[in-house]
Amino acid sequence: MDKKIILPEKDMPRQWYNALPDLPTPLAPPLDPETKQPISPDMLAPIFPDALIAQEVSAENFIAIPEPVLDIYRLFRPTPLIRAERLERALGVKCKIYYKDESVSPAGSHKPNTAVPQVYYNKMQGVKRLATETGAGQWGTSLAFSCAMFGLKCTVYMVKVSYEQKPYRRMLINAYGGEIFPSPSTATRTGAAMLEKDPGCKGSLGLAISEAVEDAATHEDTKYTLGSVLNHVLLHQTIIGQETEKQLAMIGEKPDYLVGCVGGGSNFGGLVLPFLRRKLSGENIRFVAVEPKACPSLTRGQYRYDHGDVAGLTPLLKMHTLGASFMPPPIHAGGLRYHGGSPIISNLAEAGLVEPRAYYQNECFEAALLFLKTEGFLPAPETSHAIKGAIEVAKQAGPNETVVFAYSGHGLLDLSSYEAYMKGTLENYELPQELIDEALKDCPKI
Amino acid sequence: MDKKIILPEKDMPRQWYNALPDLPTPLAPPLDPETKQPISPDMLAPIFPDALIAQEVSAENFIAIPEPVLDIYRLFRPTPLIRAERLERALGVKCKIYYKDESVSPAGSHKPNTAVPQVYYNKMQGVKRLATETGAGQWGTSLAFSCAMFGLKCTVYMVKVSYEQKPYRRMLINAYGGEIFPSPSTATRTGAAMLEKDPGCKGSLGLAISEAVEDAATHEDTKYTLGSVLNHVLLHQTIIGQETEKQLAMIGEKPDYLVGCVGGGSNFGGLVLPFLRRKLSGENIRFVAVEPKACPSLTRGQYRYDHGDVAGLTPLLKMHTLGASFMPPPIHAGGLRYHGGSPIISNLAEAGLVEPRAYYQNECFEAALLFLKTEGFLPAPETSHAIKGAIEVAKQAGPNETVVFAYSGHGLLDLSSYEAYMKGTLENYELPQELIDEALKDCPKI
Repeated sequence: MDKKIILPEKDMPRQWYNALPDLPTPLAPPLDPETKQPISPDMLAPIFPDALIAQEVSAENFIAIPEPVLDIYRLFRPTPLIRAERLERALGVKCKIYYKDESVSPAGSHKPNTAVPQVYYNKMQGVKRLATETGAGQWGTSLAFSCAMFGLKCTVYMVKVSYEQKPYRRMLINAYGGEIFPSPSTATRTGAAMLEKDPGCKGSLGLAISEAVEDAATHEDTKYTLGSVLNHVLLHQTIIGQETEKQLAMIGEKPDYLVGCVGGGSNFGGLVLPFLRRKLSGENIRFVAVEPKACPSLTRGQYRYDHGDVAGLTPLLKMHTLGASFMPPPIHAGGLRYHGGSPIISNLAEAGLVEPRAYYQNECFEAALLFLKTEGFLPAPETSHAIKGAIEVAKQAGPNETVVFAYSGHGLLDLSSYEAYMKGTLENYELPQELIDEALKDCPKI
Repeated sequence: MDKKIILPEKDMPRQWYNALPDLPTPLAPPLDPETKQPISPDMLAPIFPDALIAQEVSAENFIAIPEPVLDIYRLFRPTPLIRAERLERALGVKCKIYYKDESVSPAGSHKPNTAVPQVYYNKMQGVKRLATETGAGQWGTSLAFSCAMFGLKCTVYMVKVSYEQKPYRRMLINAYGGEIFPSPSTATRTGAAMLEKDPGCKGSLGLAISEAVEDAATHEDTKYTLGSVLNHVLLHQTIIGQETEKQLAMIGEKPDYLVGCVGGGSNFGGLVLPFLRRKLSGENIRFVAVEPKACPSLTRGQYRYDHGDVAGLTPLLKMHTLGASFMPPPIHAGGLRYHGGSPIISNLAEAGLVEPRAYYQNECFEAALLFLKTEGFLPAPETSHAIKGAIEVAKQAGPNETVVFAYSGHGLLDLSSYEAYMKGTLENYELPQELIDEALKDCPKI
């Protein structure tokens, strides 16, 4: 059998799948952070274009992918589904392991799947510039790439500690023509105020979000973009799972386990949601979500309304949360350091349809190195969680079962994390319950 | 038409093409550096395994690729041939531009095409460890990857200045389980002697070669490997051009121009050699070799016998050379900083069958950024020379002509070079004739 299952370009999905109408319990509406009342779509208009707001609440099951978006997708899609036979042999398992390789995009991860349409819809509405935040840099890179493809300007607020530690991400964003500020910056009032208070402040994702939102809200030609969590982001990512379904059909396989890492939930949602109808109709497909023990929102967070950012500027979302004021410890999978989870994934986890599991970062890096030495490629630290999850699932799986995991990104710009692991300097951090309890006290009382 | 032309795995070539019997003038034999007499194959036995020595002088046109090598090739091959339509539109050209994407390998370049079989043949002969040198790090990474796949140990001597400037390459080699020394090191007598003489020595490729050769020659279980220049290296790389030929046939195209960058000559040779018979039989296919003006061995070197390394340990090879004592200026395309060229490519250039061209590094980086902003992917600094060459060819090409260039590697671990370019700090270095004349004085008088 072929190592790589290649979907012909003509079979690339032409629609995104919207899971909202199929959720067994309806999604709780987002609330205004001040009035605590459901927000109306027009309240989001200052920061998002109309098409994305409409997608955020759409009742349609399928939404056509615009032709100019497909054109850019074709630079790297369809992505391969790959049989990890050498990994199977090293593990001595009898099941089959496949991985859907989203690392082949120009930005090196699944993030362009949503960055491309987000930039497109903004361009259609006459927007000239997009502002966003980035932590580890994957999302900032993807937005800068997509803006370069459509000729928009791009401003990225990158958490200062990452800006200093990951110079290659910054340089890549610059190479695409993106403008980048270490956050806190003097480019916004929020940033300037923070610098006045604490000139040595190294920033946080919450602060960078505030800067990007302020930038968008205070400039007529500028809007804001978010790379995970929201419904329209997961919608765009469903091209992952739709392609996977076609690729498995090409080789006569059905998946028994779908595994992915979860930070905000977008690559995991992208893989599993297109299989939701089959699961709900009785097919035995298990959705396994893997998160770090250091930031265990699905396994140990509360399912409740909370802010999406530290400053409390975003709408309140009902989700599994560790508390918006929770500051995740500095683990190396920067993309999984988020206090909450996507409302859709949280909803499915609450219904028992998504099974969350948490692992230590050292055991994830160990799994990543096994993958490297068998399959040859270097996974992102985030992706190492999916690999660890898939390995544990595979060890328990039956001899004819099929495990598919999302290979969300490569780790070539994260090599210093591997060095820290190989030196044995990484801690196996497990979050103390007191810290969660403390952060949850600040959640809005709803 | 599809953006990516994907060769089915079943059509992956099962043989390498050996150009030696087809060269219009026979290759001049390698000479012993001391006696100046042709060397016999057994003189190479202490550092190379028998199978590779046999391939180096083979008279067969096709050599079967062993099944275990094909198994590892399948991790990343066949590689895609991609239509660069967005680049064509940005240039306003009427011809078609395709690129053969060798950046998709685990090491990020074409180098594993030869590292994999080299490790395999060494393993078959009972070798336990391989030693090599690396400059920018592409070759060292590829050998470490291949050794991990076959379970051999790997020792890499990395030029100290690169070791310090490119920490990610070092970490990636470590992650594959490779051992790495900054050269000069205390691990060899050559290195230790240099450090005693000059404790601050930052090393050179020639010195690193000497350390790796000494390591192999002084350890029973260890052999040496080379990533370019030699006939067997170009042989292994012919899978690039053979796949390209099949992919062009799939879409009914014939190539008018084949373009590649040249350091030692292996990715260029890999692309063009499989088309040599068609060219010799009268088909109008032009082979365009692109090198840096700072290290212009094909355009300004002399065609003569010279040493392969600074220390004069290797056999004398007849090639275009700037003189083995020539120290190339520190341009950012580290893989193109070699004083000589592959004997096969030099032979074809001398016969007028290969057309060499030289460009400044700034114009190559400019071409690379245009590629990035149109096609989305970040090229290696070496590859930027191929892109510049292809662009210039495309501007002159007729409306129905087809330009194919070798996209030898990605630039994700070379981002600091892009930063230097974007800051405007790179020099447009053109080699003064006096420097060439000076270095050529040291060549052996043959």
